[in-house]
Amino acid sequence: MQIAFAGSHLDRADHIRADAAALTALMDWRARVLLLDGLDPVITPEGTLSWGTLADTQADSELVFLGLADGRGHFAEVSPAMIGSVAPANPRLWAAMASLSHDELATYGAARSLVDWHARHRFCARCGSATVLAKGGWQRSCTSDTCTGEHFPRVDPVTIMLVEHQGNLLLGRQPRFPPRRLSTLAGFVEPGESIEEAVAREVFEEVGVRVHSVRYVASQPWPFPSNLMVGCHAIAESTELTIDHNELEEADWFTRAEVEAAMRGDEDARFIAPPPQAIAHHLIKWWLER
Amino acid sequence: MQIAFAGSHLDRADHIRADAAALTALMDWRARVLLLDGLDPVITPEGTLSWGTLADTQADSELVFLGLADGRGHFAEVSPAMIGSVAPANPRLWAAMASLSHDELATYGAARSLVDWHARHRFCARCGSATVLAKGGWQRSCTSDTCTGEHFPRVDPVTIMLVEHQGNLLLGRQPRFPPRRLSTLAGFVEPGESIEEAVAREVFEEVGVRVHSVRYVASQPWPFPSNLMVGCHAIAESTELTIDHNELEEADWFTRAEVEAAMRGDEDARFIAPPPQAIAHHLIKWWLER
Repeated sequence: MQIAFAGSHLDRADHIRADAAALTALMDWRARVLLLDGLDPVITPEGTLSWGTLADTQADSELVFLGLADGRGHFAEVSPAMIGSVAPANPRLWAAMASLSHDELATYGAARSLVDWHARHRFCARCGSATVLAKGGWQRSCTSDTCTGEHFPRVDPVTIMLVEHQGNLLLGRQPRFPPRRLSTLAGFVEPGESIEEAVAREVFEEVGVRVHSVRYVASQPWPFPSNLMVGCHAIAESTELTIDHNELEEADWFTRAEVEAAMRGDEDARFIAPPPQAIAHHLIKWWLER
Repeated sequence: MQIAFAGSHLDRADHIRADAAALTALMDWRARVLLLDGLDPVITPEGTLSWGTLADTQADSELVFLGLADGRGHFAEVSPAMIGSVAPANPRLWAAMASLSHDELATYGAARSLVDWHARHRFCARCGSATVLAKGGWQRSCTSDTCTGEHFPRVDPVTIMLVEHQGNLLLGRQPRFPPRRLSTLAGFVEPGESIEEAVAREVFEEVGVRVHSVRYVASQPWPFPSNLMVGCHAIAESTELTIDHNELEEADWFTRAEVEAAMRGDEDARFIAPPPQAIAHHLIKWWLER
C-alpha cells in the first residue's frame, strides 16, 4: 500500500538536530530551503516542489531542519508573516499537491506540519513566556529562567475505521466534505485509551453501533495539521444507526457492489469515494481486495 | 492480550462534555472525585482507588469529567498545588498501582494523564494568555478576546518494537532502567511519518540496523505523561549493532531460550524482563507464543 504523505527520501538525521556545530555547518550556500506560499507549496512548471537557498530567507525567520539529501541540509522557513496565521487546506492546495511525486508530497507534508506547529506555538504552555526554536526546530524552549520548559512538535493519533457487517460497509459524511463524498468514520485517540478502545468508542458515539474484532490495517501521517491516521477494520454487532448529527450529516451501510461503483468513479454510484491521498481510499481498496 | 492502563469501565460520555447543563447536573452530592496525592493514587486498605465527593475538593480547583458509572459523574481534581509540579513515576507509585484491578488502573491512568496535562498547560501556546478549563476538562480555552485559541489534551504516539533476526530478539537498556532490566526499543512518532517509518527510523538511529516487514501487534495508553504505545514486530536485515549511547546504555541479541528464562524470572537469566504493566512484556510474550 503506497500511502500519500509517507515515503520521503530525506534522511531526518536526528543526531544533527542537537549538534549546533553540525547544524551550522549545513547552513551554507548549498542548503536548500523549501519555498512556501503561506503554508502551501510553491509548485514549479514541472510539477515539483520549489527550493531556494538561505539567501531567499528573511533575517528574522526561524529555520526548521527537515533532513539531509545529497549531503545538503534541507530546511523550511517559519517567517514572521506565518505566525498566528492558520491556513486550512483548500481546493487550490489539493490541486497543487496532486502534481507532486509520492516522495515530494511526503517531504512537503512533514514540512507543513512542523512549520504550522511553530507558527501556532510561540509561547510556553506552562508559564506563558515566549519560546525560541531549538534542536533544529524539533523543540521549542521557554525563555524564562525559572521555567525552562521544553516543548515538542505535536502528533495527534486519529483512528479511522472500516466498519463491516455481513459484507456491508459503514460510511458517513462529515459536514465539511464536498457534495456526495462519503468516507470511513474517524476520531481522535484520547488520553487513557488503546487504539482498539478508541475505535469502539468513536463508532458508538457517532452511530450508536457496538463493534468487536478491531484490527490494525495501515497508518498515514496527515499534515492538517499533524495527525497520525491509524487505519483499522472492525466488525459491527448490529446495523441500526443512531447518528450523532454534531459529528455526521449522514451515515449508512453500503453493499460491496455499491462501494465498487463509487471507487470506480461511476456517475450513478450512490456516493463519491474518498480521494487517493486519503488513507480512507486505501482502506476501502484493501477491504474490496480481501 | 489484557494490557495494563486499558479497559476502564467508565463511560466517557463525550456528549456530556460540551453540555454545560448536563455537566452541572452531574456535579451533585452523588458525584465521585478521585483522591490523588500529587499525581499518585490514594490506595484504600482493600487495594482499590479512593474516591471522595465534591465536598472534598478545594474551591479554586478545576474539575475534569472522567466519565459516568452507575449514573454518577466521576471527576478528577486539578488543585492549585499541582500546577507546574511534574511528579515523575517512582517506585512507590509502581507499588501502589500493582494493587489496583485492571479496570481501576485504566481509570487512574486516564485521570493522571488529564490532570498532568492541565497542570502543565495553563497558558495559550499561540498568544501566551491564560487559559481556562472547558468542556469538562477535555479542552482549555484562551481567555484573550483576540486569540480564542482552543487546546486539547495531548496524546503522543510512540512506537515500541520487537526486532527479530533468525529467531533472535533485539533488546536494549535505557539509562533510566532499574539494574539488569532490558526491554524492546521504542521512540516517538514524528510529524510526517507513518508508524512503519517511525519503527524503521528509530531502530536505525538507536542500533544502526535496517528493518523490514513491520507489522502492528498491540497498543497501550501509557500515562507518563500521556503516550500511546504502538507495539510492532519487525525483521532485521543484519545483526551488527552500532549503538547510539545517548539513547541506549547497551543492546544485544538474545536467543529464544534466553528470553524465556528472563520472562520466567530465572535468577541466572541474562537480564530482567520488563514488568507486566509494560506493553513490552506482552509483546515479548506474544513473540514467545507465536
